[in-house]
Amino acid sequence: MEVIKLSETNEYKPGAMKRFMLVEKSEFFKIINFNLEAGVIFPVHSHDLDGELSILVIEGEGYFLGKGGTKMPAEKGDILISEIREPHGVEAKTNMRIIVTIAPPI
Amino acid sequence: MEVIKLSETNEYKPGAMKRFMLVEKSEFFKIINFNLEAGVIFPVHSHDLDGELSILVIEGEGYFLGKGGTKMPAEKGDILISEIREPHGVEAKTNMRIIVTIAPPI
Repeated sequence: MEVIKLSETNEYKPGAMKRFMLVEKSEFFKIINFNLEAGVIFPVHSHDLDGELSILVIEGEGYFLGKGGTKMPAEKGDILISEIREPHGVEAKTNMRIIVTIAPPI
Repeated sequence: MEVIKLSETNEYKPGAMKRFMLVEKSEFFKIINFNLEAGVIFPVHSHDLDGELSILVIEGEGYFLGKGGTKMPAEKGDILISEIREPHGVEAKTNMRIIVTIAPPI
């Protein structure tokens, strides 16, 4: 049992994506906080593995990206649910913080 | 691929815990939003199963509860990581919204 404070990972990297591994040793899930400066794109990608992931927006806004150039508005409090093998990505319109949970961890 | 909006589950139940199943059909995780009115307790419980869970506070504050009466402050942006078989619970000091992710789903 452990408490992680997202207030301690509220840092950005100029023009890039800052990554904080929050949970990496579990055999059940992996949890990562990414902070994206306005304009930064987390490129669409996928892995040919069984599993599912969630992407929760905790600050800011932008778009969830999918296959074939799909763009869906992503606001604070929105959660994208996607299979690991479905193409997925994120584009930040403002500074944006997301929490990604991947099960099983890959 | 699906987007869930937490702005649509921002409802409380007087003196109780309101539950919204966000993801229940996945074989990899279950995601639930619980909204607790101030003073409400999500009692300490556990299940004798392999797995892990996260509890993210997205609004309000209170305490994460553990075995033997343990109480840890739980503020917006705090995440509790716990094994499913470890006793865990939540006490709301103010109105409080939490997102619980359980992997594998139980």
